[in-house]
Amino acid sequence: MTGSDLRVGLCGLGTVGSGVVQLFNSHSGLIRQRCGAGLQLTHVGARRDNPGCDLTQYRVSRDIFDVVRDPEVDVVVELIGGTSVARELVEEALEQGKHVVTANKALIAEHGNALAAQAEAKGLALRFEAAVAGGIPVIKTLRESLAANAVSGIVGIINGTGNFILTEMASAGRPFADVLAEAQALGYAEADPTFDVDGTDAAHKLVILASLAFGVPLDTRGPFTEGIDRVHPEDLEFARELGFCIKHLGIARRRVDALDLRVHPALVPAARQIARVDGVLNAVMIEADAVGEIVLTGPGAGSLPTASAVCADLVDLGRVLSAAASDPVPILGIATAALTPQPIVPAEDVTCAWYLRLVVSDRPGVMAEITRLLGDSGISIESLIQRPPVANSSHVTVVMLTDVVTGGQIQSAVSNIEALPALQGEVTCLRVESFEGA
Amino acid sequence: MTGSDLRVGLCGLGTVGSGVVQLFNSHSGLIRQRCGAGLQLTHVGARRDNPGCDLTQYRVSRDIFDVVRDPEVDVVVELIGGTSVARELVEEALEQGKHVVTANKALIAEHGNALAAQAEAKGLALRFEAAVAGGIPVIKTLRESLAANAVSGIVGIINGTGNFILTEMASAGRPFADVLAEAQALGYAEADPTFDVDGTDAAHKLVILASLAFGVPLDTRGPFTEGIDRVHPEDLEFARELGFCIKHLGIARRRVDALDLRVHPALVPAARQIARVDGVLNAVMIEADAVGEIVLTGPGAGSLPTASAVCADLVDLGRVLSAAASDPVPILGIATAALTPQPIVPAEDVTCAWYLRLVVSDRPGVMAEITRLLGDSGISIESLIQRPPVANSSHVTVVMLTDVVTGGQIQSAVSNIEALPALQGEVTCLRVESFEGA
Repeated sequence: MTGSDLRVGLCGLGTVGSGVVQLFNSHSGLIRQRCGAGLQLTHVGARRDNPGCDLTQYRVSRDIFDVVRDPEVDVVVELIGGTSVARELVEEALEQGKHVVTANKALIAEHGNALAAQAEAKGLALRFEAAVAGGIPVIKTLRESLAANAVSGIVGIINGTGNFILTEMASAGRPFADVLAEAQALGYAEADPTFDVDGTDAAHKLVILASLAFGVPLDTRGPFTEGIDRVHPEDLEFARELGFCIKHLGIARRRVDALDLRVHPALVPAARQIARVDGVLNAVMIEADAVGEIVLTGPGAGSLPTASAVCADLVDLGRVLSAAASDPVPILGIATAALTPQPIVPAEDVTCAWYLRLVVSDRPGVMAEITRLLGDSGISIESLIQRPPVANSSHVTVVMLTDVVTGGQIQSAVSNIEALPALQGEVTCLRVESFEGA
Repeated sequence: MTGSDLRVGLCGLGTVGSGVVQLFNSHSGLIRQRCGAGLQLTHVGARRDNPGCDLTQYRVSRDIFDVVRDPEVDVVVELIGGTSVARELVEEALEQGKHVVTANKALIAEHGNALAAQAEAKGLALRFEAAVAGGIPVIKTLRESLAANAVSGIVGIINGTGNFILTEMASAGRPFADVLAEAQALGYAEADPTFDVDGTDAAHKLVILASLAFGVPLDTRGPFTEGIDRVHPEDLEFARELGFCIKHLGIARRRVDALDLRVHPALVPAARQIARVDGVLNAVMIEADAVGEIVLTGPGAGSLPTASAVCADLVDLGRVLSAAASDPVPILGIATAALTPQPIVPAEDVTCAWYLRLVVSDRPGVMAEITRLLGDSGISIESLIQRPPVANSSHVTVVMLTDVVTGGQIQSAVSNIEALPALQGEVTCLRVESFEGA
């Protein structure tokens, strides 16, 4: 298609799809000017209309596969979400010789290796800037701007819903379930918020970032993943008292011959820039050997911010495909054949300081037993808060920060502590993120 | 050169040049892998050796113009700085049919229109990611990631030396000259720090950002520019008391049919993310209609961070020129012929709240006179701090925050106030940045 307009077919008219239509409707002149060559939206496929979308300028199909098979479409934008039909759609698009742009992190994380290889074999583009951190250009930064850097680590707040919930819990002291219901009412959380809450969504994004940063194949089995549902309002309070905020982090670090990949709530020093990223904002901190540390902050979701990233991919393709037969930027940062798997450090071997909260009988000797059990596992206590028992209660809450130890040490100490008759319920264990590389 | 390696000739072995050599020496495998096609440094030109640089693998010339005329160089990297020889060098490189990458903000800001037009006419690349905010990918973000956005404003800390000086002054209460001397000793400030201190360096960068954001030609006459030398330690103290930090900001905003372009120290609400960007860090906040607000933070200068940006441009070119005859990304975001000048809002018409600090005789009626003169210019006082006179002094320091008024109103009120016999010295006037768009 060198020399002529790049014709875009859009599949899906949900939150992001309608944003893309809105940008094409309002900014077609701007896009054409910046693209050099033309970029036109020609065909929109969606099972039903979106009343907020003016589609009068475009061919509209109820069957999204009509878009994929339209000979007047050069690039297919997949915005239907999910991984079954979306995968078929993208495979079929590539089969038909069409470039693909998607915002679908689950699709890329789960099937990206095969899709990238398919696209590469056919000399087709597969772009997914919108799949991670919405409007923040983190994919481009890793794939292009840091191309001469060895990345050592990424720490990110990459799920806006989860960050909104933790921020609200921290500022208002409200319990998790309450805030989740509000997030759903506000449209931040999906009707089924499981993936936002249990960390799956953040893990998908982390898998994508890790592949670009470290040259490993996409592998959703990689990250250790923990959700935010275990965080109680009192943990947020205790954390603040100790000088921390609690954030749901995605962490990817290069170790000697292995990668440390984790998604979990963590205590973050309150003075850290990332600790102050609140609400639905996302932030990604990248540590790399040449550049040092850069932090990108912005809206990680939402109709227009995500559509902005989708359209950035389209403008990139419009520009490059007007001059070249194929997209010269490797889909996963390097050729898929050069991607090299690396072992993942097991969670029990990862070291960090820990926050432990436990409720115990208010009687002499209990604390001595607990510290002895911690000591038996080689764990020292760095700080300790003990609250006086509330009226009529025979129990006290104790919060401890440990020194830096392995997950295995904590596991064994905690299972011993939980066996004590003096203990009420389970021990809440949260990791402390120390930003070692920075 | 489609299909073969892109051969790089480097001119200048100072701070940035030696960083580029270091990255080529240490990361050639990584760069080759990410580039797809090869990218090799072949020829280095510098008046003298840099003992920290291993040049054994490269042809070395004492005359940088030998690099430009070397038929085995496809892209010339200009890192000599300045605007006279650098301009000749870049013109000659383009004349010789070579692509150009530069980190030279003064060159791009002052001569970028002609150079971009020359490069464009010959189908050559002219890239300058490293010219603004060092290792932070702000040029790429504006030119590529936000291509489907109408940018409404940019607020940035884009001079690391100035930010280091203000941060040190604020944290240690030390006077400007002291901290400047330290910055020079640490190698942050140039031997001649004039451009860092008087705002010229930040203005050059702002001119480049404004061109990319708003599609205007580069024009160094545009920005109103004020340096940091007028900021006294006590201003930093008063600002803190009022809930602000003082930062040296570059501000570019789109107004109705005009642009507001300014570089000056400003009071920034302490809770703002940009207020917490300290030391030699840079930060650029971009407000755009689709994405909302994104903030990029990182090292704005230094050998390897800046070299990281230079090499990112080279990898981009290596990738694209392996597949295309020319760089399809417009040098200034859109074709140079489409750049459209816009009038600049005169400083006296720009509205903001103001911080005024004045020293007056400690006698009845003086404050009444001052508030009357402010009132005569239509200015209200929002907050006021008056310090008790220090022992043996007959003068008191008064600090005021005004409501939002024009620069002209402040000018006329201040010149009236300065005519009062009760006034000692001049009135210190600093703008307050309210981040209206955000």
